[in-house]
Amino acid sequence: MQRALRMAIVGALTNPGSLFRTQLAYGAMVAAGFRTDIAEKFACAVEYFHVASLLLDDLPCMDDSKERRGRICLHLLHGEPTAILGSLALITRAYALLGEVISQIPATRQREAHRLLDRCLGSAGIVNGQAQDLAYRPGGRREVLRIALGKTVPLIRLALGFPAVAANLPMRQRLLLNRISLYWGLLYQGIDDVRDASEPASIGRMAGRDARLRRPNLLLAVGQEETISSLMRLSRLAQQAVDLLTPDRRFGFLDAVQKNISERLITALLEEQEPDWHGLPQAYFH
Amino acid sequence: MQRALRMAIVGALTNPGSLFRTQLAYGAMVAAGFRTDIAEKFACAVEYFHVASLLLDDLPCMDDSKERRGRICLHLLHGEPTAILGSLALITRAYALLGEVISQIPATRQREAHRLLDRCLGSAGIVNGQAQDLAYRPGGRREVLRIALGKTVPLIRLALGFPAVAANLPMRQRLLLNRISLYWGLLYQGIDDVRDASEPASIGRMAGRDARLRRPNLLLAVGQEETISSLMRLSRLAQQAVDLLTPDRRFGFLDAVQKNISERLITALLEEQEPDWHGLPQAYFH
Repeated sequence: MQRALRMAIVGALTNPGSLFRTQLAYGAMVAAGFRTDIAEKFACAVEYFHVASLLLDDLPCMDDSKERRGRICLHLLHGEPTAILGSLALITRAYALLGEVISQIPATRQREAHRLLDRCLGSAGIVNGQAQDLAYRPGGRREVLRIALGKTVPLIRLALGFPAVAANLPMRQRLLLNRISLYWGLLYQGIDDVRDASEPASIGRMAGRDARLRRPNLLLAVGQEETISSLMRLSRLAQQAVDLLTPDRRFGFLDAVQKNISERLITALLEEQEPDWHGLPQAYFH
Repeated sequence: MQRALRMAIVGALTNPGSLFRTQLAYGAMVAAGFRTDIAEKFACAVEYFHVASLLLDDLPCMDDSKERRGRICLHLLHGEPTAILGSLALITRAYALLGEVISQIPATRQREAHRLLDRCLGSAGIVNGQAQDLAYRPGGRREVLRIALGKTVPLIRLALGFPAVAANLPMRQRLLLNRISLYWGLLYQGIDDVRDASEPASIGRMAGRDARLRRPNLLLAVGQEETISSLMRLSRLAQQAVDLLTPDRRFGFLDAVQKNISERLITALLEEQEPDWHGLPQAYFH
């Protein structure tokens, strides 16, 4: 592989984030009865799509970020063209992995699996969500949630929904997984919004980005009270759906994920409500 | 679909170029025995990958083009983010179409088909070729051909090679199709190089781009004489390989394509050798 391209990809993949989508994808594949090597390939594909979207998000013409996960952005290290090509290399590799995974499932389910990929990844899915995100004009709660539905839910829906389709799980379980991915996607985006709008920045990315770029942000759109009630409600709904699935012990991993998300939520809300200690010493010095 | 995104994609697809790769892909699928609706899907997928790569090539951080095929570039009309997302929408749609096509072929051939896709499209294929193109340092004939091999051959190899793999054609035909895609890829790129380095510009894109951006260009690297002999040789080799395939009448369409390419080659070389009539009136006015 061309040197700069390889360095960019290595840089992107050796600086992992929460691996939230990756763990969901892996857990759901194993729960659906797939071998761990197949589950790993699927989980990596989902992570590659995610990292590819972050590389593009950070570009000067998008969010113009300087840092990602505490490190200098790749387009600043290797140039914009290499960041774009790195993103494409990750996407094409992800499709190659999905191809290997799909070739393991019976022909009768392949078409449905392909349709799900198209719905989540294409111009009806994450790409469209990113376009809506860029075209956002300040609106209320519905508009902010509609965009989160477009840009954050699809990959989580893919992570949980693909294994369900591939293994032909019972319709009730598929619908529950679909509901969980909806709640978790909106919740995850909402937590991100709270952290972005809160000070001090401690998430290895410039906080305040959403305000600066006029991007959709629940906290900025509806204020603290409605954000808290909205996210707590999503968390409750997610827990209820998880509780309906976990009697089937294969889905026990969802319970751990739900606990993890609700902890993230509480931490984010607490940080948001705490005074800005970092800013305090300067506050009385004019 | 988000409005700007849809407009960008419609703009890209209603301004077709030569459709060279599309016609190859369709012809090869029909020759390999596939139904015309499946051949159309495959041909569209190949075209989408090609158009997606052009959208990215034109970006300010890449070639900084103003026009493509005689029209204003999409990133100038709809903004860079929309051009990037439009490119991604085409790529994901292309993979969805390929998924539909692959689900029609027997499971035993699916893995090989996926491997071919990965080799042509991913970080071993066109993405790597584009990275090499950007990292080019002026070199001789070998270096220029090496980069053409990386960036122009892969999609043509996909167009001719995928149908051969999918239909499990005899190895001799597969090898011949592979050779033809090599010769045609290098030839097509060489013709493009000649037209880029020649005046006046009549190809609906700014000529002289390669010299300006220090991109690999056969004519600029080795001069007129070696370029002519190199491209004429490639054309002869391609004709020989086509002649070995066309006794199987299903491959008759390759003969028409070869005639078309050699006409393009002659036209490009003649233009290159003609005096620059456009520039002449000004030449004696100082």
